[in-house]
Amino acid sequence: MTQAELDQLAINTIRTLSIDAVQQAKSGHPGTPMALAPLVYTLWNRVMRFDPKDPIWPNRDRFILSNGHASMLLWSLLYLTGTRAVNADYERLGEPSVSLDDIRHFRQLGSKAPGHPEYHWVSGVEATTGPLGQGIATSVGMAIARKWLASRYNRPGFDLFDYNIYAICGDGCLMEGVGAEAASLAGHLGLDDLCWIYDNNHITIEGDTGITFTEDVAARFLAYRWNVLRVGDANDLQRIEDALAIFRKTEGRPTLIILDSHIGYGSPNKIDTAAAHGEPLGEGEIRLAKQAYGWPEDARFLVPDGVTATFEAGIGARGAACRSAWETLFADYRRELPDLAIEIDQMQRRDLPAGWDRDLPRFPADPKGIAGRDASGEVLNRLARNIPWFLGGSADLGPSTKTTLKFAGAGDFQADNPGGRNFHFGIREHAMAAIVNGLSLSKLRAFGATFFIFSDYARPAIRLSALMELPTIFVFTHDAMGDGEDGPTHQPVEQLISLRAVPGLVMLRPADANEVVEAYRHVLQLRHQPAAIALSRQPLPTFDRTRYASAAGVARGAYVMADAAGGPPEIILIASGSEVSLIVQAHEALSARGIRSRVVSMPSWDIFEHQPTSYRESVLPPAVKLRLAVEQASALGWERYVGDHGRVIGMKAFGQSAPLKELQRKFGFEPERVLAVALEMLAAK
Amino acid sequence: MTQAELDQLAINTIRTLSIDAVQQAKSGHPGTPMALAPLVYTLWNRVMRFDPKDPIWPNRDRFILSNGHASMLLWSLLYLTGTRAVNADYERLGEPSVSLDDIRHFRQLGSKAPGHPEYHWVSGVEATTGPLGQGIATSVGMAIARKWLASRYNRPGFDLFDYNIYAICGDGCLMEGVGAEAASLAGHLGLDDLCWIYDNNHITIEGDTGITFTEDVAARFLAYRWNVLRVGDANDLQRIEDALAIFRKTEGRPTLIILDSHIGYGSPNKIDTAAAHGEPLGEGEIRLAKQAYGWPEDARFLVPDGVTATFEAGIGARGAACRSAWETLFADYRRELPDLAIEIDQMQRRDLPAGWDRDLPRFPADPKGIAGRDASGEVLNRLARNIPWFLGGSADLGPSTKTTLKFAGAGDFQADNPGGRNFHFGIREHAMAAIVNGLSLSKLRAFGATFFIFSDYARPAIRLSALMELPTIFVFTHDAMGDGEDGPTHQPVEQLISLRAVPGLVMLRPADANEVVEAYRHVLQLRHQPAAIALSRQPLPTFDRTRYASAAGVARGAYVMADAAGGPPEIILIASGSEVSLIVQAHEALSARGIRSRVVSMPSWDIFEHQPTSYRESVLPPAVKLRLAVEQASALGWERYVGDHGRVIGMKAFGQSAPLKELQRKFGFEPERVLAVALEMLAAK
Repeated sequence: MTQAELDQLAINTIRTLSIDAVQQAKSGHPGTPMALAPLVYTLWNRVMRFDPKDPIWPNRDRFILSNGHASMLLWSLLYLTGTRAVNADYERLGEPSVSLDDIRHFRQLGSKAPGHPEYHWVSGVEATTGPLGQGIATSVGMAIARKWLASRYNRPGFDLFDYNIYAICGDGCLMEGVGAEAASLAGHLGLDDLCWIYDNNHITIEGDTGITFTEDVAARFLAYRWNVLRVGDANDLQRIEDALAIFRKTEGRPTLIILDSHIGYGSPNKIDTAAAHGEPLGEGEIRLAKQAYGWPEDARFLVPDGVTATFEAGIGARGAACRSAWETLFADYRRELPDLAIEIDQMQRRDLPAGWDRDLPRFPADPKGIAGRDASGEVLNRLARNIPWFLGGSADLGPSTKTTLKFAGAGDFQADNPGGRNFHFGIREHAMAAIVNGLSLSKLRAFGATFFIFSDYARPAIRLSALMELPTIFVFTHDAMGDGEDGPTHQPVEQLISLRAVPGLVMLRPADANEVVEAYRHVLQLRHQPAAIALSRQPLPTFDRTRYASAAGVARGAYVMADAAGGPPEIILIASGSEVSLIVQAHEALSARGIRSRVVSMPSWDIFEHQPTSYRESVLPPAVKLRLAVEQASALGWERYVGDHGRVIGMKAFGQSAPLKELQRKFGFEPERVLAVALEMLAAK
Repeated sequence: MTQAELDQLAINTIRTLSIDAVQQAKSGHPGTPMALAPLVYTLWNRVMRFDPKDPIWPNRDRFILSNGHASMLLWSLLYLTGTRAVNADYERLGEPSVSLDDIRHFRQLGSKAPGHPEYHWVSGVEATTGPLGQGIATSVGMAIARKWLASRYNRPGFDLFDYNIYAICGDGCLMEGVGAEAASLAGHLGLDDLCWIYDNNHITIEGDTGITFTEDVAARFLAYRWNVLRVGDANDLQRIEDALAIFRKTEGRPTLIILDSHIGYGSPNKIDTAAAHGEPLGEGEIRLAKQAYGWPEDARFLVPDGVTATFEAGIGARGAACRSAWETLFADYRRELPDLAIEIDQMQRRDLPAGWDRDLPRFPADPKGIAGRDASGEVLNRLARNIPWFLGGSADLGPSTKTTLKFAGAGDFQADNPGGRNFHFGIREHAMAAIVNGLSLSKLRAFGATFFIFSDYARPAIRLSALMELPTIFVFTHDAMGDGEDGPTHQPVEQLISLRAVPGLVMLRPADANEVVEAYRHVLQLRHQPAAIALSRQPLPTFDRTRYASAAGVARGAYVMADAAGGPPEIILIASGSEVSLIVQAHEALSARGIRSRVVSMPSWDIFEHQPTSYRESVLPPAVKLRLAVEQASALGWERYVGDHGRVIGMKAFGQSAPLKELQRKFGFEPERVLAVALEMLAAK
């Protein structure tokens, strides 16, 4: 067979595997794999530097399928290239990432060919995609990481990091706001290692894009400062390869390749229709499509001779050679620059450098105290000084979130300063979260910051950080009603419970400066979980830890901060964040009256839930039924801890515009009120 | 004084009121009011058709301050124009909307001059703004409504609806993805009554826009098919007026006016700096700024003679004349087209036409049943036939959400069919929600639909619907794990609790087709609350309501659907949505064993919480401690109803990609499991 014939054979193998898998599953999206098989074949087999034997080799080119519903493209590629599996500890395993049996069980329980690409579940998946726009936005984070890594680690003769990032997207990704935010920032930053390939098929679920999406995409991306190319035929491998070559030599701008394609290509009755998008073709149409491809009509899951060999000769050989050359280079690098090599090792394993927490501050007792955001700023700076790859930024609120890294050399990340560690994400919270995920996927330790209320803008990306089990850090300041005068549009109420509900996300709300320290100490050690830290705008008293228990209890989610002598507590007071000082004051007042109360600081429900029952019951003894929780947020969910005989001082409505002190009075977040409710509960006992 | 002098006097009054109010409040944003006072003065006093005496006159021009932090612009205008208040029942009151005393108490508790524009709290505010991008996206909904109203109600000689929509926005609004989504759709729809004015001041909180926002905004909007104008001097009233005149005669495209401005204009030391953005100028700088304006340095909250008269002669006289002419026109219209006039009356009061619910279906008992989304589609169609101004659409999922209105004449809303009642929002969930809010603000009854998981994309706009107390309807299909094979990216887990936590939002999850009917019956009658309805993708059995209690109980949030004879229940089974059929089956199995159980269908926590204690305790008697809740969602929060002795069968992790039945087995949502847990609880009693 000629190479051209082998190419077609491989392409049609991807197409028919996709068609057959969807048909078998009675569910899935055949149309886009049928259209884009030539693209991914060209990209993977002729261009990408990716070694199937080691899918986490640090300098591999990245491939993100932002239109994740076309997952069969990826499962076909991972199977046909013989990509190997890796476990959660980054150990290379011999077994295949995706087997033909997985593909036969596409979308079935336990299959390594699930409905959408899932990072951590299937090796070779660079990012979980499916919710549209997320993949491309995340790819911007990866392209930023690429620049940063090159800036820090490359040296003359040592181009350790020179990989490219390819993302495929459809109309949906380009309609979603998060994609637009990310594209604008990518253009600003001149991320020339980033290439998006837009599957311009003119079809969405409701029909032709003419009903809703008639903007001039090329003009929009030119406005964003991108390089824009157009390939008029998705079946023309040479033109695709040429466009990719232009991308690779373009400097100073990311590249968008607009690829005119036909959804359901090969299906005579469904091509160019929404019917090809999200359901099996049906037996009859499958036969017709296979006829069109010159494929045996009756074959199912057929991988003809020569196809895997073609991939071995293409991406397999090129990937192995690139990786091998890189490993030789890195060995030399390690000899010359051992300290930097160790950093790269640590980063790849998600380890932290020795002594990373040695400079964490201990804040002295101070009734006037310090704002959570200020304590956080101090901690971030100290951590970042000791962890070279710890970096982040804010969605245009740096001066307010106090997240700026200020030490010498921290600098701003910009096109002309790619080693900067402070990011200006702009007023783009959603893209920020997706980008920080992309930084995390690239093994950097990254944080993104905004006001707590605006976590709502970023939720889909925050959710993905949890689903991907990434150690992304979200810093949310101005929690509760701290943003008083700005009013209800700026005062979180339901955000705490909403983020506590995200599986796997560690939501923390520290009570004073030392709890801020301990919160970060805990969070930095997470390797597979994202965390969100809610911080106060206003000063919070720093508790005297010789009098109250150590803030190290943060690591257990909740802990007894103060207790009564002389017997079990008559009432337990529970709070998080700024309200802990209220229950401490109430506790002191109760003690003065001879009433035994316990103060439980509860910065994290998530962490507490993972403690053994014995610990949980030592903090909240089942026998003590009188429990009062105080939190300046929706009261919803607190019943879990206060129980049938408990009460909650929380928010049941939106806030209002007024100075914080007035709001605290109006909504009942004052020590007198806490004391009064506690006494009421004790009296009613 | 010449008119030019009076103009300057009025402009500087707006500036100095803003400066003084921020200084007095020790909080707020003076810089943008200082920059944009000439713009809003020109727009309001020379152009806008708005009668301060009747700020809800239906054909008024709309003004949205999307950069809501510049609220002092609006408070100044509402005060200086003598805008009158209106109550929540749309009754015109004599008192002023905003008084000078309110301005003196800017950002204080109870003041009608809060930190950000708040709809419903201050008359004359057309939309609550502050979270960036929301105002402009909402304005697109208003512009759609304007087209739709004109299409349905205007007749030759009766241009009842010919108003314009003006929105002012800053860099933030244009960086936010929701603004981009809305702009793309506005261009597609050719909304030529819509004018955005972009305050191009090159400054954001972190500094010059050069650090993060260097795209070519004009080129981007041209790509969106907008008309783009630029005014190079924000102090040039004539050029502003000329640009607004070009907008008004532009057909087929929305208009973006890029207005080059200087934040903090007049302040010699803070002009063009981020320092002018979000904090008081300080006494010294205030004096310097007032000097620059030719203002008495010592005066505070000064409104010089002639200023209110200038507004009376401008917007006051024009607005009164326009309204009076319109009322005469509408009186004639009422004589000629009384039925349509009645529709307009009803719509304005948020009333429904008589017989609006007469065709609501009653679904017969059917063990095979019907999917929630299909029942919903049927109900939506029947409602829409009887409520002419009930309309909506989907974010490119119409065929899946089943929200398409299919009766004759429903049609698609497009530039060439502005009377269409089906909207194609594109893959833009966030803009969809903001746009549906804009339709609601325009008194249409509107719904927006997508998969439940993608409610996350729309949260900031959903929150605003609740804060604005708008009767917006969100239709969320594919709830729980119904989207089985698509996997965890598409399976909601934390979305239910997250939306239950939004104050004022009515979250409903009906259990069968008749509960779907009752859910909509309840929701349609809400005048000041948004609702979200979570619906199944898969068929749910339609319960035999002669055997089980009527679905009318939905209106109380939770109700006893089945009970045991012969005594109080030994155990209460509680569920919502698809899980109700599981507890019904468990109940039958328990009955067969002679165990008395109660089935509580609980479609809405929100509604249930608002029932009197007597009702709540009749459904969940405090004496019955054994309670089992079953819901295919995060278990968080259920403790409120199951109590200390209860249990919850819920989700603690993300879902997986597999057929629904396999997932139900894996995660324990099967009748056998429910029965087993109930028996376990009874045995442990």
